[in-house]
Amino acid sequence: MDRLTKIFEFIKEIDKEKFIRRQTYLSDGMTKEDDSQHAWHIAIMAVLLSEYANEDIDVLKTVTMLLIHDIVEIDAGDTYAYDDSAKATQAERESKAAERIFGLLPEDLGEKFKALWLEFEAGETMESRFAHTMDNIQPTMLNFVTGGKAWKEHEVMLSKVLKRNEITSLGSKKLWDYSLNTFILPHTISGNITDDTQKN
Amino acid sequence: MDRLTKIFEFIKEIDKEKFIRRQTYLSDGMTKEDDSQHAWHIAIMAVLLSEYANEDIDVLKTVTMLLIHDIVEIDAGDTYAYDDSAKATQAERESKAAERIFGLLPEDLGEKFKALWLEFEAGETMESRFAHTMDNIQPTMLNFVTGGKAWKEHEVMLSKVLKRNEITSLGSKKLWDYSLNTFILPHTISGNITDDTQKN
Repeated sequence: MDRLTKIFEFIKEIDKEKFIRRQTYLSDGMTKEDDSQHAWHIAIMAVLLSEYANEDIDVLKTVTMLLIHDIVEIDAGDTYAYDDSAKATQAERESKAAERIFGLLPEDLGEKFKALWLEFEAGETMESRFAHTMDNIQPTMLNFVTGGKAWKEHEVMLSKVLKRNEITSLGSKKLWDYSLNTFILPHTISGNITDDTQKN
Repeated sequence: MDRLTKIFEFIKEIDKEKFIRRQTYLSDGMTKEDDSQHAWHIAIMAVLLSEYANEDIDVLKTVTMLLIHDIVEIDAGDTYAYDDSAKATQAERESKAAERIFGLLPEDLGEKFKALWLEFEAGETMESRFAHTMDNIQPTMLNFVTGGKAWKEHEVMLSKVLKRNEITSLGSKKLWDYSLNTFILPHTISGNITDDTQKN
């Protein structure tokens, strides 16, 4: 296959990401979000919010990372942030998926995308940390907008929300503070998130 | 409202783009694509295909333009490429929408996004021309993948496809040639697109 045909094989394949459902409800409170909608939303967020990163970031790199970060879920499925058993097998499933799907591309582009995905997973660079900040704040914002519906359904505890968000402040302390105070804490008061952090 | 609250008002508002349906079918041949899925897809395409632009482009600018180019449809609705009566009122509806929705942002960011959207609409810069190439080739590719279903339903003529795609080659001659030969012409042979260009 020539270069352009390989690129379009990948472009056709990733259409499947539009069928991968997440646990988050869209703002209508009824429709579950799909991975491509989520990626689109957080890519725009990264452009708008990059000034709040703890350190300067390469915005194009961050946006590209966010656009492709869930492509592995085409094979590996969405792993809900609070599903511990699914999380145990997540890394292996996603690694195989990355080999197959990024492997459709010409070698240079496939390596570039795989490296970006691995960088996101490792979360050690400023760009990947800020990407995780976007990836965590967006569903939190949608949970807030929909009256905490997904939190309530999954009986999520505040300790788990805080644990999951440990990395959120590594990308942006300001945005984590905003998210905690604006989106999360009001739902512990209303009881949609059970505050289990006050015992003793 | 403070700066961050304004930015999040916009981020919440654009969730509505996920409910704007296009005429294009996804690769399952059943589900109609929404605007956010489309924008996500073409943003990734721009990253992968920028090397085929007629001239060098600023990839971040192009990707940002593509991510936000359909936001006006939250108020103005999707205008099908081959619906002439809807196209007559499109510019006014979209212009009002741009004022309202980009107006939610802090002034500097709102002006930046509005300028990017206007640049896309005008199609005079290399970035906006390449953005139109992505915007046109992606539904063509999905039409090809789904056996020309949307073309057939709308009884689309080859002359209209060619007319609509006059600007596609301005962004990338190579990609237009690829799209024409790989995605479009096979469907004139199969009859899903009626070839009305051979009369006389």
